[in-house]
Amino acid sequence: MSLETTSSLETCIVQIAQDARKAARTMAAVSSNRKNQALAAIAGLIRKKAAFIQAANAKDIEHAKANGLSPAMVDRLTITDKGIDAMADGLLFVAGLTDPVGSLSDASVRPNGLEIARMRIPLGVIGIIYESRPNVTVDAAGLCLKAGNAVILRGGSEAIHSNMALAGVIEEGIKDAGLPVAAVQIIPVPDRAAVDILLKQEEYIDLIIPRGGEGLIRHVVALSRIPVLKHYKGVCHAYVDDTADLGMAVNISVNAKAQRPGVCNALETLLVHASIAETFLPLAYDAMTKAGVILRGCEKTLAILPQIASAAPEDWDAEYLDLILAVKVVKNMEDAMAHIAAHGSNHTEAIITQDYNNSRRFVREVDASLVIVNASTRFNDGGELGLGAEMGISTSKLHAYGPMGIKELTTTKFVAWGNGQIRS
Amino acid sequence: MSLETTSSLETCIVQIAQDARKAARTMAAVSSNRKNQALAAIAGLIRKKAAFIQAANAKDIEHAKANGLSPAMVDRLTITDKGIDAMADGLLFVAGLTDPVGSLSDASVRPNGLEIARMRIPLGVIGIIYESRPNVTVDAAGLCLKAGNAVILRGGSEAIHSNMALAGVIEEGIKDAGLPVAAVQIIPVPDRAAVDILLKQEEYIDLIIPRGGEGLIRHVVALSRIPVLKHYKGVCHAYVDDTADLGMAVNISVNAKAQRPGVCNALETLLVHASIAETFLPLAYDAMTKAGVILRGCEKTLAILPQIASAAPEDWDAEYLDLILAVKVVKNMEDAMAHIAAHGSNHTEAIITQDYNNSRRFVREVDASLVIVNASTRFNDGGELGLGAEMGISTSKLHAYGPMGIKELTTTKFVAWGNGQIRS
Repeated sequence: MSLETTSSLETCIVQIAQDARKAARTMAAVSSNRKNQALAAIAGLIRKKAAFIQAANAKDIEHAKANGLSPAMVDRLTITDKGIDAMADGLLFVAGLTDPVGSLSDASVRPNGLEIARMRIPLGVIGIIYESRPNVTVDAAGLCLKAGNAVILRGGSEAIHSNMALAGVIEEGIKDAGLPVAAVQIIPVPDRAAVDILLKQEEYIDLIIPRGGEGLIRHVVALSRIPVLKHYKGVCHAYVDDTADLGMAVNISVNAKAQRPGVCNALETLLVHASIAETFLPLAYDAMTKAGVILRGCEKTLAILPQIASAAPEDWDAEYLDLILAVKVVKNMEDAMAHIAAHGSNHTEAIITQDYNNSRRFVREVDASLVIVNASTRFNDGGELGLGAEMGISTSKLHAYGPMGIKELTTTKFVAWGNGQIRS
Repeated sequence: MSLETTSSLETCIVQIAQDARKAARTMAAVSSNRKNQALAAIAGLIRKKAAFIQAANAKDIEHAKANGLSPAMVDRLTITDKGIDAMADGLLFVAGLTDPVGSLSDASVRPNGLEIARMRIPLGVIGIIYESRPNVTVDAAGLCLKAGNAVILRGGSEAIHSNMALAGVIEEGIKDAGLPVAAVQIIPVPDRAAVDILLKQEEYIDLIIPRGGEGLIRHVVALSRIPVLKHYKGVCHAYVDDTADLGMAVNISVNAKAQRPGVCNALETLLVHASIAETFLPLAYDAMTKAGVILRGCEKTLAILPQIASAAPEDWDAEYLDLILAVKVVKNMEDAMAHIAAHGSNHTEAIITQDYNNSRRFVREVDASLVIVNASTRFNDGGELGLGAEMGISTSKLHAYGPMGIKELTTTKFVAWGNGQIRS
């Protein structure tokens, strides 16, 4: 495909958006059985055409290496045999989820006899802008389809061959199930300009979900006229209260920091009540060091652990995504909550305590998409919270706050049944 | 106040936004009793200081008349004695609503023993940009306060004296109840530039609600980096099916069109099944004419009602807000639904039918914030649907679709209670 001018690129993107809008109307009325058939068909084709998908992926990997991408990036890009199975299994898992579309809630009868309810419906057309990992193409397509939406995918240029191969496979599966092929479309050009045009199609697109680095997300938020569900970063805290079970506090902190340090729900700052700091910090230091974690402390922490480095002001806002942990001694829970309000990112905040009133107050007053008592921050995840598959974690409050499961890809409309009611 | 440069205006707006963010943290933890006390205090002060409020209002009215505003606009601007009572009564009504903040839902226990729920919380800081009617200042402040939010209000320049007087009264009531005065702030300058600066404060503001004409709303959507809940227009349809009770269809259509033609849930286009058009249209014509409604018809309508004017293509997209009705004969319900999909505004769509399957299909497949069977489109209203007070009707699907009640001014976070759980 050759798109030499902005105007022909614009024509292409607008056409994709219009086709998606049309497909969304059909998708909204499709039965769960039909959607599940499509998901199973795509899963089958992914396994059957693994060699074709992996050959396309090899081209992207070759390009990536030639362009000097880091080994970690190349790793994220690679579709292994296990990756093929994971995509197919993921689709079958989504097929097994309860379909939220059409369900009624909040039913009531008004004094005039009008019967009212809210009916869950698909959002319509969802645009997903993502980087690097080509499995997002399949995971996102599957969840959007199951929720009855049409989806427009725009992956990173570094995965364009993989994504186009996956798009072909998805299209075939959708056709096999008799659904409109425009229900899943991939933007076939790697230009950044395509994203900017997409963000202006508010007439046809209901929601944009950007998945990637903070730069990508800020760009999308600044340009989009379409609502955006986003997540900038996870600066997660654990506060160890003076009544905490210290063994539990050590376990939870180490798990939250070190079990998988490169993810958004990993712990970045540990806040410790002053009255237990002298007992707790040496225990935490030993366990963290064993787990390969390097500490950076406030002045009071350094007084107890003189062997660690001093934390700079920017450490309190850092999302390390690495085996580094900032440690601060606080006067009390109030002080901890003030630190979280100033430096937290509304992602995940934990308290370790045995105090009834403090547990209640922390849960009520801390503003984060998950507030958790006596457990690891790593539980902020769609699967762990019981939502099934997820589309990322929203740290903005409109529509979804926290992991976005299938329900967050739908909305509700009001429906009403009468027998001639008029307003007076 | 004199704000001569953009940079001093920016400083002022940023300060307001920061103060609101701080107040929001306090408001989130305030008890329902305290919030209700504040609402009652403001209601009392509005009645007590009616003369002061109306004197300020008189200045705005004088200005408006001098600037040649239409009598309808002057009427919307005027705070009558009845208007004073309506504002005070509205606040007491909101005080009586159940407080959604802190309530738990979707509770479950995970296999590892972690207890999960969603807790309803305030959105945080809400910015409301509105035109003309000064009662919005009080209504919006009351509903936002009850939901535990801080609110920044930016009314039209034509109501600046009235709004500042009301702001003073609200501030006094808030102080009396011991709440932070920055929980309700009014931007004290009439510059349009203030709005543009406000829309960039995504760090401090969680939601923008514009209330006014389509021009204002499009401006806000184009500039805002903050999520917007909006409603462009209401092009509402009623479809009269071939099995409809024709007397009921006439009653509902006339009520939907003529009971209050200037509002967004009024009927704008009537769609009539071809097989009943010859019987139904003359009945509808007589009743509409009696109600002062002028019809504009498609070709097939004109063949039955030659006395009416012909509809131009733009009539099918018109929000008349007047005693004018477009009428189109359609082949069947499918044809009606296609017309609604092409010309509707996702606001309110009605079917009049006695057919079970058609009623089910219309409700399921038509995409509008309210889909209603055998009743007037005029029921798309927070009060009529049982939500209590409302903040307008959203026709975009994210977060709220339809009337926005107190619940729509809140969101949910996840909360979890454990006893040492970690991830493996």
